[in-house]
Amino acid sequence: MSKQDVKILGAWPSPFVMRPRIALNLKGVDYDFIQESMSPKSDLLLKSNPVYKKIPVLIHADKPVCESLIIVQYIDEAWSSVHPILPSHPYDRATARFWASYIDDKWFPGLRDIGKAQTDDERKAAIEQVLEGTALLEEAYAKCSLGKPFFGGDKIGYIDIALGCYLGWLRVTERNSGIKILDEEKAPGLAKWAEIFCSDPAVKDVMPETEKLAEFAKVVMARFKAEAAGQK
Amino acid sequence: MSKQDVKILGAWPSPFVMRPRIALNLKGVDYDFIQESMSPKSDLLLKSNPVYKKIPVLIHADKPVCESLIIVQYIDEAWSSVHPILPSHPYDRATARFWASYIDDKWFPGLRDIGKAQTDDERKAAIEQVLEGTALLEEAYAKCSLGKPFFGGDKIGYIDIALGCYLGWLRVTERNSGIKILDEEKAPGLAKWAEIFCSDPAVKDVMPETEKLAEFAKVVMARFKAEAAGQK
Repeated sequence: MSKQDVKILGAWPSPFVMRPRIALNLKGVDYDFIQESMSPKSDLLLKSNPVYKKIPVLIHADKPVCESLIIVQYIDEAWSSVHPILPSHPYDRATARFWASYIDDKWFPGLRDIGKAQTDDERKAAIEQVLEGTALLEEAYAKCSLGKPFFGGDKIGYIDIALGCYLGWLRVTERNSGIKILDEEKAPGLAKWAEIFCSDPAVKDVMPETEKLAEFAKVVMARFKAEAAGQK
Repeated sequence: MSKQDVKILGAWPSPFVMRPRIALNLKGVDYDFIQESMSPKSDLLLKSNPVYKKIPVLIHADKPVCESLIIVQYIDEAWSSVHPILPSHPYDRATARFWASYIDDKWFPGLRDIGKAQTDDERKAAIEQVLEGTALLEEAYAKCSLGKPFFGGDKIGYIDIALGCYLGWLRVTERNSGIKILDEEKAPGLAKWAEIFCSDPAVKDVMPETEKLAEFAKVVMARFKAEAAGQK
């Protein structure tokens, strides 16, 4: 397959864009990474994802696939002979889908709200939500990994990708808030897992440096605060 | 497999509970339907879904699976030899997952907001959202069904279950609001599809009667309005 057959429309700071990139790296599939500027959105993005107009989009042989976790499942099914990402047993697959969905629906919104909080109470509530969620994920990690390095066992799997893509933003949040979330006391399994995950060859080149992401976060937060002030 | 091996914890008015029930019916799997009273929640529910404490839960050979669309995928994979629910090609599978996710994340919240709206503006915005979403789903139906009765082709598939489970509540909303959503002019494909879907043997016994659901909706709305008034 030529490189031109597989494209990712994305942007380097987006955790959602990291997911299909890691999945393609695991499968050994070469792809074109097309950076979207977001303003204005490209015609290719608007045509490829007319419903949400959002990145990431995977374009494979001219057909677009949208929504990061759906793209990861598509990649796993389209290149099924190399490095399975979802487990093989239906029950384990359901468990992987459950935690991936929990991470997006509950855990990450809390992490994002720590940065966005405008009062001490909001900040405290968001931190509590993330710490409770992290404790649940620490338990899930112990159950899924069974003493091996990843949620997926010996190799990076679906939950690893779903959670791991947020590690850059987690580090920025930890630095800005002074709160340690993946703490070696509170979440020793995940603290170790995060190190191994980030140094994996499929991950290390797409995981943004904390310094660079922190600079980007400053710009985003300044814009968010200006918008919030304008709405008051 | 004995009936005792497969249980659904649920409640008859819940659209989410209908999904695994329809999927099991399609697969010809007999199951125990355990009605949850919701208040207080049963020990079995709290033990089976400790994260969300919500129905539906499928319990298969004593192992719980949570979240309705994850359960439907589990059922499809665990009983894979009968009536495939997801399409076989990775791209079609991604398309099915995309629309199922759109229905839950965008279309249904609009439908629910029509009933919950407390001002004319809120009601108008919700109706607009649902009509726009329905137009998108009408297009998706034409593309996926290719002239056959269901999104899944000749047989009920994943999008059919994802959207079809809301038809009872859609009818109640149409009746209460006086707005026709699955209108034969605006959405002729879906209007016909809804009739065929509801009369399917796998669906008709689990689809609540509109009259009974409307009575239930009155009780729920009265409670919601009392709570909203209490919060003001």
